[in-house]
Amino acid sequence: MLTELLNQIGELYDEPMEKAQQHLDSLIKPPGSLGVLEEMAVKLAGITGELAPALGKKTVVVMAGDHGVTDHGVSVAPVEVTAQMTRSFLKGLAGINVLSRHTGVEVVVVDMGVRAELNLPGLIVKKVRPGTSDFTQGPAMTREEALQAIMAGVEVARDLIAQGSKVLITGDMGIGNTTPSAAILAVLMDLPVEQAVGRGTGINSEIMQKKIEVIKSGITINKPQKSDAIDVLSKVGGFEIGGLMGLILGAAAARVPVVIDGFISTAAAMLAVTLNSRVRNFLFPSHLSEEPGHRLMMEYLGLTPYLQIKMRLGEGTGGVFGAFFLEAATKVMREMGSFTSSEVSALLEERM
Amino acid sequence: MLTELLNQIGELYDEPMEKAQQHLDSLIKPPGSLGVLEEMAVKLAGITGELAPALGKKTVVVMAGDHGVTDHGVSVAPVEVTAQMTRSFLKGLAGINVLSRHTGVEVVVVDMGVRAELNLPGLIVKKVRPGTSDFTQGPAMTREEALQAIMAGVEVARDLIAQGSKVLITGDMGIGNTTPSAAILAVLMDLPVEQAVGRGTGINSEIMQKKIEVIKSGITINKPQKSDAIDVLSKVGGFEIGGLMGLILGAAAARVPVVIDGFISTAAAMLAVTLNSRVRNFLFPSHLSEEPGHRLMMEYLGLTPYLQIKMRLGEGTGGVFGAFFLEAATKVMREMGSFTSSEVSALLEERM
Repeated sequence: MLTELLNQIGELYDEPMEKAQQHLDSLIKPPGSLGVLEEMAVKLAGITGELAPALGKKTVVVMAGDHGVTDHGVSVAPVEVTAQMTRSFLKGLAGINVLSRHTGVEVVVVDMGVRAELNLPGLIVKKVRPGTSDFTQGPAMTREEALQAIMAGVEVARDLIAQGSKVLITGDMGIGNTTPSAAILAVLMDLPVEQAVGRGTGINSEIMQKKIEVIKSGITINKPQKSDAIDVLSKVGGFEIGGLMGLILGAAAARVPVVIDGFISTAAAMLAVTLNSRVRNFLFPSHLSEEPGHRLMMEYLGLTPYLQIKMRLGEGTGGVFGAFFLEAATKVMREMGSFTSSEVSALLEERM
Repeated sequence: MLTELLNQIGELYDEPMEKAQQHLDSLIKPPGSLGVLEEMAVKLAGITGELAPALGKKTVVVMAGDHGVTDHGVSVAPVEVTAQMTRSFLKGLAGINVLSRHTGVEVVVVDMGVRAELNLPGLIVKKVRPGTSDFTQGPAMTREEALQAIMAGVEVARDLIAQGSKVLITGDMGIGNTTPSAAILAVLMDLPVEQAVGRGTGINSEIMQKKIEVIKSGITINKPQKSDAIDVLSKVGGFEIGGLMGLILGAAAARVPVVIDGFISTAAAMLAVTLNSRVRNFLFPSHLSEEPGHRLMMEYLGLTPYLQIKMRLGEGTGGVFGAFFLEAATKVMREMGSFTSSEVSALLEERM
């Protein structure tokens, strides 16, 4: 089933991209002067096959999960916060709720593996298990569980797209999840663990040292194979990371653009791209996280984050701004006057 | 009158800023994790004296003017485009119109010195003269005209604030106006002209060389005094740049935040700050222009542009996105749950 899905992920359409570029160059502005917005418009045409697609419904998917490694104290926050923040998302009180309302984005929350019984109206439950295993003692999850998490994410993507979502945005919640994300980064890019880790929600140097040791031991004990994304996910990943991988793959297979948020989301995107490099065609960056390894992840993906807003909250809070810029790009295509339709016409055409 | 205005520009209020910081630290997120949004919220409290001001009406002011130096062919676009783009703004067809609708910003257009008779419904006419003089032959304008342009901008700010605008955004239109802006940058920062210029709307190396010579000759002939902003404006500036200076000063005097757009707007901000360094208290950056000198200008102002969207269109197109982020910051303050009001409370409070 996963293989079939991966085979559906295609190339960008060349002709719509050329036409989009021509249209952009006909608008009443110097060629290229809208920068990143123009790049987005061209890529969107390549994804959708439409010159100027309207982006209607935009959905951020906040995938939540807990992590066995939190028992080592790798985060300042207690593990119970994952469940409590999940409740806050459904109450509309968290950062992602506020910023999604502001940017016109719908919030969907998925329990991929929270270590608590959550029975909340509106919550999508795809719980693989209540928290991964401690990966310093063996794999975080079995290979079957890894596949289950991914396919759950694919299903969420399919359902949302069927319900009319035109853009998906990745979001995450999981106390301790910068630890598996840094492990994934270190494995996929063959980095010394020290280069892959950061301070997460704000740990001190002592906890940081602990975090480095935990990751080193997880990699040494489990020997994740960097060419096998499922292996990496199962050994040092997380359920919400697997869910986000699936969300990205499901969107890519359906030719729906995906906006990538910060450190955890980008770890999931790296794994998805390892499965099929054409996934890149459907990804849009958003912000550059304060988590230092994020820059390396984005380089690996060949994407340039353009919002330098120094955020490190996760939840999709950078991603929803990204979707807002994507929508701006579609409006430039649809609403701006062109040389031919305006008085600026003749004079500029002969000179520019 | 200008002196009186300058004396009204004050310091940020300390206590509201402290309270805003405390409030931010009580919200359900790791301290500081919303990065630039948190910095904005604190500064806004310092400006308005309110813990969590609502930003209602946001207005971008596009000031238009022509430039005598265009007779040297320093731009790829003919001078008539200034007038034609001004018409496009009023028709709602230009980039700034599209992006302002997207970000919920009102567009106001001011004729500060377009080289054409414009009689258009909705246009605010503050025309000093139809285009500045060629500054390679003497000052771009008289000192009286410079003051007139500034006071016209102050008036526009006052009127808009009286009509309910809570944020002003700077925008510009003027074929050739990267030339005076680069001249202002070179003078105020004592830079070699080569470091201050860029390719504007897209000139080739030959025109670039011409542009450098024009600026060098303007500086040599007129000897603008960097400590005297009015002198610099009159000798190598432009009417729309003077208008934007006034707009910024008027907003600062009324303690209304101003979002600065790109290269031309920032040249105006530098001049305003030269008149009174407390103007900085009321400025917010937005994007980093592709015009290379913009980075130096922002350093001069002590502001860090956070939108790296590779734009170089002017009109306020980066600024309206900046206002959108500013509004996001106010919503974080007003809408996010706090530890005390949510279930996350106790657990996190004891640990973070």
